[in-house]
Amino acid sequence: MPQFQIPTEQWAQVVEKTGGPSVYKKIPVQKPGPDEVLINVKYSGVCHTDLHAMMGDWPLATKIPLVGGHEGAGVVVAKGELVKDIEIGDHAGIKWLNGSCLACSFCMQADEPLCQHALLSGYTVDGSFQQYAIAKAAHVARIPKECDLEVIAPVLCAGITVYKGLKESGARPGQWVAVVGAAGGLGSMALQYARAMGLHTIAIDGGGQGNEKAQHCQSLGASAFVDFGKSQDLVAEVKAATPDGLGPHAVLCLAVQEKPFQQAADYVRSRGTVICIGLPANAYLKAPVFNTVIRMITIRGSYVGNRQDTQEALDFFARGLIKVPFKTVGLSQLGEVYQLMHDGKIVGRYVVDTSK
Amino acid sequence: MPQFQIPTEQWAQVVEKTGGPSVYKKIPVQKPGPDEVLINVKYSGVCHTDLHAMMGDWPLATKIPLVGGHEGAGVVVAKGELVKDIEIGDHAGIKWLNGSCLACSFCMQADEPLCQHALLSGYTVDGSFQQYAIAKAAHVARIPKECDLEVIAPVLCAGITVYKGLKESGARPGQWVAVVGAAGGLGSMALQYARAMGLHTIAIDGGGQGNEKAQHCQSLGASAFVDFGKSQDLVAEVKAATPDGLGPHAVLCLAVQEKPFQQAADYVRSRGTVICIGLPANAYLKAPVFNTVIRMITIRGSYVGNRQDTQEALDFFARGLIKVPFKTVGLSQLGEVYQLMHDGKIVGRYVVDTSK
Amino acid sequence: MPQFQIPTEQWAQVVEKTGGPSVYKKIPVQKPGPDEVLINVKYSGVCHTDLHAMMGDWPLATKIPLVGGHEGAGVVVAKGELVKDIEIGDHAGIKWLNGSCLACSFCMQADEPLCQHALLSGYTVDGSFQQYAIAKAAHVARIPKECDLEVIAPVLCAGITVYKGLKESGARPGQWVAVVGAAGGLGSMALQYARAMGLHTIAIDGGGQGNEKAQHCQSLGASAFVDFGKSQDLVAEVKAATPDGLGPHAVLCLAVQEKPFQQAADYVRSRGTVICIGLPANAYLKAPVFNTVIRMITIRGSYVGNRQDTQEALDFFARGLIKVPFKTVGLSQLGEVYQLMHDGKIVGRYVVDTSK
Amino acid sequence: MPQFQIPTEQWAQVVEKTGGPSVYKKIPVQKPGPDEVLINVKYSGVCHTDLHAMMGDWPLATKIPLVGGHEGAGVVVAKGELVKDIEIGDHAGIKWLNGSCLACSFCMQADEPLCQHALLSGYTVDGSFQQYAIAKAAHVARIPKECDLEVIAPVLCAGITVYKGLKESGARPGQWVAVVGAAGGLGSMALQYARAMGLHTIAIDGGGQGNEKAQHCQSLGASAFVDFGKSQDLVAEVKAATPDGLGPHAVLCLAVQEKPFQQAADYVRSRGTVICIGLPANAYLKAPVFNTVIRMITIRGSYVGNRQDTQEALDFFARGLIKVPFKTVGLSQLGEVYQLMHDGKIVGRYVVDTSK
Repeated sequence: MPQFQIPTEQWAQVVEKTGGPSVYKKIPVQKPGPDEVLINVKYSGVCHTDLHAMMGDWPLATKIPLVGGHEGAGVVVAKGELVKDIEIGDHAGIKWLNGSCLACSFCMQADEPLCQHALLSGYTVDGSFQQYAIAKAAHVARIPKECDLEVIAPVLCAGITVYKGLKESGARPGQWVAVVGAAGGLGSMALQYARAMGLHTIAIDGGGQGNEKAQHCQSLGASAFVDFGKSQDLVAEVKAATPDGLGPHAVLCLAVQEKPFQQAADYVRSRGTVICIGLPANAYLKAPVFNTVIRMITIRGSYVGNRQDTQEALDFFARGLIKVPFKTVGLSQLGEVYQLMHDGKIVGRYVVDTSK
Repeated sequence: MPQFQIPTEQWAQVVEKTGGPSVYKKIPVQKPGPDEVLINVKYSGVCHTDLHAMMGDWPLATKIPLVGGHEGAGVVVAKGELVKDIEIGDHAGIKWLNGSCLACSFCMQADEPLCQHALLSGYTVDGSFQQYAIAKAAHVARIPKECDLEVIAPVLCAGITVYKGLKESGARPGQWVAVVGAAGGLGSMALQYARAMGLHTIAIDGGGQGNEKAQHCQSLGASAFVDFGKSQDLVAEVKAATPDGLGPHAVLCLAVQEKPFQQAADYVRSRGTVICIGLPANAYLKAPVFNTVIRMITIRGSYVGNRQDTQEALDFFARGLIKVPFKTVGLSQLGEVYQLMHDGKIVGRYVVDTSK
Repeated sequence: MPQFQIPTEQWAQVVEKTGGPSVYKKIPVQKPGPDEVLINVKYSGVCHTDLHAMMGDWPLATKIPLVGGHEGAGVVVAKGELVKDIEIGDHAGIKWLNGSCLACSFCMQADEPLCQHALLSGYTVDGSFQQYAIAKAAHVARIPKECDLEVIAPVLCAGITVYKGLKESGARPGQWVAVVGAAGGLGSMALQYARAMGLHTIAIDGGGQGNEKAQHCQSLGASAFVDFGKSQDLVAEVKAATPDGLGPHAVLCLAVQEKPFQQAADYVRSRGTVICIGLPANAYLKAPVFNTVIRMITIRGSYVGNRQDTQEALDFFARGLIKVPFKTVGLSQLGEVYQLMHDGKIVGRYVVDTSK
Repeated sequence: MPQFQIPTEQWAQVVEKTGGPSVYKKIPVQKPGPDEVLINVKYSGVCHTDLHAMMGDWPLATKIPLVGGHEGAGVVVAKGELVKDIEIGDHAGIKWLNGSCLACSFCMQADEPLCQHALLSGYTVDGSFQQYAIAKAAHVARIPKECDLEVIAPVLCAGITVYKGLKESGARPGQWVAVVGAAGGLGSMALQYARAMGLHTIAIDGGGQGNEKAQHCQSLGASAFVDFGKSQDLVAEVKAATPDGLGPHAVLCLAVQEKPFQQAADYVRSRGTVICIGLPANAYLKAPVFNTVIRMITIRGSYVGNRQDTQEALDFFARGLIKVPFKTVGLSQLGEVYQLMHDGKIVGRYVVDTSK
């Protein structure tokens, strides 16, 4: 078993008061409890949620001071006495769900993301924007040794979430799924997961120049692209993109606008399922009762994946089926990434390297 | 095999122009096609939909002239050459779904109510407000000989619909279901079906005097009653009615108001299902995206049952587990029933006797 | 929070060498680890498995010395530092599954009984035939305070197991289930659980005198009784017991003979499910390939329930829907119970009282 | 709408007495009933079942005289008055299931292959070894115009059957399926369907020379090949072929020997499913009760697909994902094909051209 020299101090990004900023500074390294592991985070993806956590603009209060981050990939360097199935030196990932009680009715039914005592990385407990982070051993993602830690980081939140959404949709191989917001970070992964699952996709997005977004989506396997900015009749166009004209069997709403949530019930096939994942601020689902009943439409919210979903989603990645465009900067530059994010200037995903 | 004397003329209620009235008159008796049966309707339930059909105030156009009615119970007196599994003299029921193509992707998956070529009794084809009605043999309800035709008539629409909704909810024996509009006609049947299926119910209704509605619901097996007119905090009260305070696993919305559809997503348990059945005019489902996603709520429309649901629902009735309060008048008096219905003065269900 | 005086020594039944006997003696009381609880066992059911464990005649080796027992009901008197959701003074039950890793692919999918690192009470770890037993907190059954500990003990294994089997059968309320071995301990509970779940049952058993077994089964809700000792054609008789003659939708094999496992595939309805629970020594499932394929029969093994099944099964008991006949003797008399069991003289279930 | 000249006589292969031979002769062309179509069969696959039908060595009696064949692809040239959704000139396929009642409890639940009144092409009704064959319109496969009728013929039975088996297995994209008899006709299609459905496959077969079968299977997407002729420990080898060593999630038994059915329960993953499709004569499923229960194994028979499965299976084919090796001869040469089949000399699939 490898031995790791664990320092007493480390570099971290710390939000010292709600609203920010995040301060790059040295803080102590913690020791894991009996059911926890200490992970030497090598890389961490940066997600919009991290910015929300710093700004404190979500209804749920954060820990303060707070180390953000919930897409951390690294190496296990210490573990508690009860941790049996993870060895020192294993690669592991810190996810949004840092821990849960494992004993409530939700946890007992493998719905641990619904646990009322869930610990959230970079939100209610310190996360992955530090060199040494703690997580419940039962919850860390097991990362195969052959996976590059830098590349896998963004999969730990975005990838798992869209994979879970596709599972929840109930769509079977050979069926059709529309992905709303297909050209974005989550959407690009959704198209690839769907292809690997034998599903046909209709990419829905808009606002880009020329055919850039359409080409991007088609290169990721989309069978059709519908531009919601240019379409005269989005509902008709999406339905027409399926061979029998009855519309897709499922819709994945990844958008952060409200309108797509309200159109999906119109173009989804009768008996089909609209999966809501994106979280536009203060938005409402809205669908006419008559049509929803007569056409037996299902609308379902899908949150992050559970632990099994996590391992399944990583397995698709490990097989080389999912590519994630990203750009890496030093952990010390996190503030600049937040600024770009705030200004809406980010294309793809940012990853921070905790060594600089 | 019994022989039936089939007259050439019969009494019927005919809507001769959209908006009504329905005229009691003699019309010819039709002959069944190769895949059809002719049913001597003995009794027919009267449903709000029949009034809508006469008034023409729904988006879908009706046949004109139109014989309404879709809860007809009677005796098969003639059949086409292709009809093998029904004998002359069998008891059978005319349902909302008079026929469907049996070959489209919906029919092939036992979702014949979603067939785009469905024939609707008393709406797109003549229904059960006549003494001799025609229906596709594959679609008529098979009524056990031991069932009273007068009593079973209202089960043919209302009973099947609530049973289907309970099935679609996915609630398992031992779980909790809230029924919104529990004291009404559909609600009263829903409480009884739920009890027979091993489910616990929370009856939600309001507006009555004293404890009358609560007592009515409890007599039908409800574990709790919540009065939406009197409750200070409906959401809290419904959740508190479940032993662990997490809310019911499913909600059946039978109400014809819009608000209950919008509250259900608040009190249903995380991972729970809200089933929409009632059809308030111009109403919208509405639920906050954030909560729906984070709590993984499912909202699903449930329409009428398919043929298998029909037989299952009738089986519960045949075992004496479902009681339906009703009042019988002559077919000639249908206009008076419509008037009472229009004035909101009906308690329970009306049945018309086609012999008078 | 109540305080409990925990002694350093206690009475226990200890198997000191494979083959027995079990010795009633004083042994030390253990201390719970960080994720464990210490339960003051009040009553424990006695199961055939306990005899197998003492005799060592199963393929899997037991711990030696061994304290047997896996149906223990008692009071939590101490707990480890990580145990949050159980309080000192709570009532809890020790089940066959004493603990599992909670992190493997089976545990992550709520199939913890399939965990390859499962701890088995009274088999691979000490069980409930002692006054103070240890179990993983996440795994102990949560027993409602209103339940009598003496009465609930046998439910902790037998009740949960048959409830799980009924769930695995996929039978829905209104459908038919045949229970093979219906008059026995497990069978009697299966009939009651089935009734509470809205299922119709066909009780199959035999060998008794007069109509005793038939009457017993019918008193527990069975719709029909078939005596396999007297029936000229068991398959035909079971099928005839269903209204349409197509046979039951599911079969629960609780018998400890081999033959019933091999007949069930003949009388179960096409597309039906045969659930195997009983464990006759060295027995084989056997079914003709042709019929199994052409009729699309499913044969499925069902082991003990998971934690969620446990709570659901106890909930049915707590509502008074399940009655278990049992007889209580002192823990010191366990040897005599084993003798009766060995001689096949036990009717109903024995419970031991750890206080004497 | 195209017009077709329908002759009064046609060429057919007719089995005039049980045991054969099949005689190539002219017989009259039938007229379709109200719910039937007349198909001008262009090509028909030849299946082992056809030989069984001629020999009469299955327990179920055939029609005599009999026109065999149940993989016929052709053009609709006439139809009955009730047939609405098929046009003259459409391409359609004759399957094993020529018709069913569409009204029994199996048909109502989309399990029409279990209908007790099913008509079987080339067995209980005349099949596709003639130029003009009749089938129930609701049951003929709808063949897209872009599909080559010669190539699609063998998909109409073999392809649909293995696709159905994969669906029944419950295996999800990313999971592992072992295919027993992988190098044969059904096996080769199963490997391709599995790949298209996002499944990983372990091909099991044996008896060939060198690495030919292994290479064949791997070219069709198999992740591993296990030779049952050479393996020292088949069970261990199959389990080792899965990344975590726990064995495949499902097994498809296509073999016509008995032993593979009895080994599958040993190497399938706990909670996994063994699907039986192949029909070795007089064979029995056999599995130890103990292991099946403790590991919660499911063993399920899977027969031919229903109508929806048919359309889904054809859709995968139409997308170019399934290749079927076949050789075409004239309908007049059917006897020679039977001889080769009887001698076990057929590799791949034979197709007969009805024009010669």
